[in-house]
Amino acid sequence: MIDFDNWVCPLPLRDYPHIVMGHGGGGKLSNDLVEHLFVPAFHNATLSSLADGATMTVGGQQLAFSTDSYVVRPLFFPGGSIADLAINGTVNDLAMLGATPLFLSVGMILEEGLPMNTLGNLVDILAAAARNAHVQVVTGDTKVVDKGHGDQIYINTSGVGLIPTGVDIAPQNARPGDRILISGTIGDHGMAIMSVREGLEFDSPIRSDSAPLNGLVADMLQCSTNIHVLRDPTRGGVASSLNEIAKSAGVGIALDERQFPVRPEVAAACELLGMDPLYVANEGKLLAIVPPEDADAILETMRQHPLGQDAAIIGEVVSEHRGKVTSRTGIGGTRVVAMQIGEQLPRIC
Amino acid sequence: MIDFDNWVCPLPLRDYPHIVMGHGGGGKLSNDLVEHLFVPAFHNATLSSLADGATMTVGGQQLAFSTDSYVVRPLFFPGGSIADLAINGTVNDLAMLGATPLFLSVGMILEEGLPMNTLGNLVDILAAAARNAHVQVVTGDTKVVDKGHGDQIYINTSGVGLIPTGVDIAPQNARPGDRILISGTIGDHGMAIMSVREGLEFDSPIRSDSAPLNGLVADMLQCSTNIHVLRDPTRGGVASSLNEIAKSAGVGIALDERQFPVRPEVAAACELLGMDPLYVANEGKLLAIVPPEDADAILETMRQHPLGQDAAIIGEVVSEHRGKVTSRTGIGGTRVVAMQIGEQLPRIC
Repeated sequence: MIDFDNWVCPLPLRDYPHIVMGHGGGGKLSNDLVEHLFVPAFHNATLSSLADGATMTVGGQQLAFSTDSYVVRPLFFPGGSIADLAINGTVNDLAMLGATPLFLSVGMILEEGLPMNTLGNLVDILAAAARNAHVQVVTGDTKVVDKGHGDQIYINTSGVGLIPTGVDIAPQNARPGDRILISGTIGDHGMAIMSVREGLEFDSPIRSDSAPLNGLVADMLQCSTNIHVLRDPTRGGVASSLNEIAKSAGVGIALDERQFPVRPEVAAACELLGMDPLYVANEGKLLAIVPPEDADAILETMRQHPLGQDAAIIGEVVSEHRGKVTSRTGIGGTRVVAMQIGEQLPRIC
Repeated sequence: MIDFDNWVCPLPLRDYPHIVMGHGGGGKLSNDLVEHLFVPAFHNATLSSLADGATMTVGGQQLAFSTDSYVVRPLFFPGGSIADLAINGTVNDLAMLGATPLFLSVGMILEEGLPMNTLGNLVDILAAAARNAHVQVVTGDTKVVDKGHGDQIYINTSGVGLIPTGVDIAPQNARPGDRILISGTIGDHGMAIMSVREGLEFDSPIRSDSAPLNGLVADMLQCSTNIHVLRDPTRGGVASSLNEIAKSAGVGIALDERQFPVRPEVAAACELLGMDPLYVANEGKLLAIVPPEDADAILETMRQHPLGQDAAIIGEVVSEHRGKVTSRTGIGGTRVVAMQIGEQLPRIC
């Protein structure tokens, strides 16, 4: 079964004989792993769709299934913790398939020496976040690794949700003419983590936007089931998510940077650290790609929801420059928004 | 939401202000975490049943859902690797609920510096193991942590399966009079790992028994749907699994040690290292608790299957000493087989 001798590292992985931090960054290097290693190995139609999770039919029901491991540090940061992220992240992956999240699993890898109080607090937060998102944690697993082989706690959550009949949301569904909506300000989560790590202080501290988006998605689907794509722009930010969608659907994406909602303190922090908010992780925002005729109504519905107050239309799907994302800049020029190669912020989620 | 000030570490966790290796060992300390921390925090009926996974009803279908993280070292050992274990382990957890495993997720936490070839080999093995168990890997996630904060690779697998109508398998279902069956030799996996770590050499090397048990379970259910309990005795071994079942069902369990199939080399290694095979992990064996009238037929079916050739009846469920497990020893005495406190073999799976 093991064919050590004949296994050949496929291109372009061959350029990296060892795993580097960027392989976990959600950008080009992460994609190379998925595209050139995971998809060929596990080949099946579901995995190849490269959505935030899988959809599958069991006994006539359309189910969604997703998994994510969380290795963020620090464990606690303004606006959240690894435990909120772990619940909200998997809830959001399911919601991005149009599913109603139902059941979650929690798997923890604890490092020997983790204070019991820290674990207790994190478990309380996990439970509160699950209640807040209306999902049940129904199964779990705990492993302990020796001191120096972990980092206090890593959390995996997986989840199962139910996709309502008639809903068909997938990256491939983007069509030229579709409008691109964002549910609120971008870059908050990444810059909250970064400002803690760098010891930056602002008049109003930057808080993570970690939040469960299933309620917002339910409202949007109530308004129109004709939503083509949903995606939560986490690792790699809006830029990487839209590049993946452009490639999956074989369409171009044209953004207008001036329409992006960005908090002033996030813009300031990005400028100070030389970062681009388009590449910074979000944990409580969604991108929606919808037909032009439904865009205004869906935007209005989003703005009625507490998590969508700052929603905006930020661009559209075009038939030009297929597979690529461009953006009109603040001074009216146009730039290419490339997939990032490695990552700006290691261990952001 | 975070109530740091008022969170009080519940007894008996208070005796351990920090996580120790034994909290991941599958024995008493692991149980304390589950019973006194996780179950109260996430309280719901499904989690409280403490099976190998959860069962849930979605749109009239009975589904099984399970998760497990794998931190075994070394990564490769006689008879298997972390990758086989990760697939077979979750397949088995689903099978122990009587479910047909359908879909798996794979979440990996990679340590910076992991050779790409090692990752490639492990992914190939994951894929081969999935094909061998007739399950599809449909979704995944990869994170990278900095060197010194992991141990090459940790793998989480979660899985979804379908429970056939009429099947009701749960630890609570053990009834006095039921027979207890084991599907084959015990202690192989744990002693394979241990002999690598300790550099022990035997004439015939001890190989892990890592295997997917869903085919065996399907045959058993074909023979009789009247199976009360199934459990794969992994961490903590047969002793811990049966103690959990005795406690869950409020019954006593009486074993006859002389009936246990144990390979001579495993018995020798256990004696050398002062270990008891009843407490050593298995990764391709199951315990079945079945009504006495069905026991012989089910045993016969098990023996027809390649993974059940050495199956044996090893004891019965009794109405005496409820919550406890006893065993007749080789010289005819009776001993109490207690839950182990911590663990014999850290990072066995």
